[in-house]
Amino acid sequence: MIQDSEFFRMEGVPITKEEIRAVSIGKLNLDPEDIVLDIGCGSGGMSVEISKRSKFVYSIDNSEDAKNTALNNLKKFNVENCTVSLGNAEDLISKFDFNKVFIGGTQNIEQILEILKEKNIEIIVVNTIVLENSVKIINKFEELGYDVNFVNVSVSYGKKINSGHIMLSKNPITIITATLK
Amino acid sequence: MIQDSEFFRMEGVPITKEEIRAVSIGKLNLDPEDIVLDIGCGSGGMSVEISKRSKFVYSIDNSEDAKNTALNNLKKFNVENCTVSLGNAEDLISKFDFNKVFIGGTQNIEQILEILKEKNIEIIVVNTIVLENSVKIINKFEELGYDVNFVNVSVSYGKKINSGHIMLSKNPITIITATLK
Repeated sequence: MIQDSEFFRMEGVPITKEEIRAVSIGKLNLDPEDIVLDIGCGSGGMSVEISKRSKFVYSIDNSEDAKNTALNNLKKFNVENCTVSLGNAEDLISKFDFNKVFIGGTQNIEQILEILKEKNIEIIVVNTIVLENSVKIINKFEELGYDVNFVNVSVSYGKKINSGHIMLSKNPITIITATLK
Repeated sequence: MIQDSEFFRMEGVPITKEEIRAVSIGKLNLDPEDIVLDIGCGSGGMSVEISKRSKFVYSIDNSEDAKNTALNNLKKFNVENCTVSLGNAEDLISKFDFNKVFIGGTQNIEQILEILKEKNIEIIVVNTIVLENSVKIINKFEELGYDVNFVNVSVSYGKKINSGHIMLSKNPITIITATLK
């Protein structure tokens, strides 16, 4: 996995942390033939990792700073099988063909999940930090008839100080995986 | 990532949980040309995952039940680039050539790390659950001159109950990564 410090960053543009990327990549169960939609790609951390393990990635973000940061990271890591589109997911989804989806963040999540259901997407992995979104997404996936699996992952980073080693905690992230029954 | 429930299990033989496997695989930064030593392979969960992302895996465990469970899992997941040896790591290490190491568990950890240092291993990833071992391993890696990175990962699994959804916690695992400077 690429270390967080290796990515280009821009103030206000989020990135999925290394360990959360690792678990999310694991949940996507990627195959070299997969074509993946990355909704809310932010800095492109997941786009880069997915592109190295799949055929093609369509990344979307509604922030121009995010689009530019993601493009910088795709270039830095020599990724040629990923495009980044600026706009809202609900307007853009229909333009692409794909079989798996990663959602790092989006507005109108329930509408998005309904659109994805109509496209019979095999696996959808969503990262959430907001509790209300976790509840909304889990319930929506259940309502749409998916097999739903969700884990909460808390990571602390070790640091050496004078008196020994300590752990500094990152925010717990909920990783929700929906699989077509 | 393979789900925990898909592996053959035997009472008393541990397995590295899916999310910890995902993070540990990420830390190993595997390349298709890597040859990896898996010390304390237990049920072979990591051996199977590593073998799918590298050239060859040498797995070691000092328990016959672990060896048999691991062999069953290698067969179940059609792994042909991995062998499992029964015995103590300090006796077996010299028999193999490899460039990365995963340690899921071992006795005499300090002696093992010294032997690995002499072999100039690029990346060593160790999982620990015992606090004393975390301290011992971090200090030993620092003494041997490695770049040391360590994270503690706590995973909770979601479950649906009558009144909603709850999270059930798994034990926190410390993942220590040593990289040659």
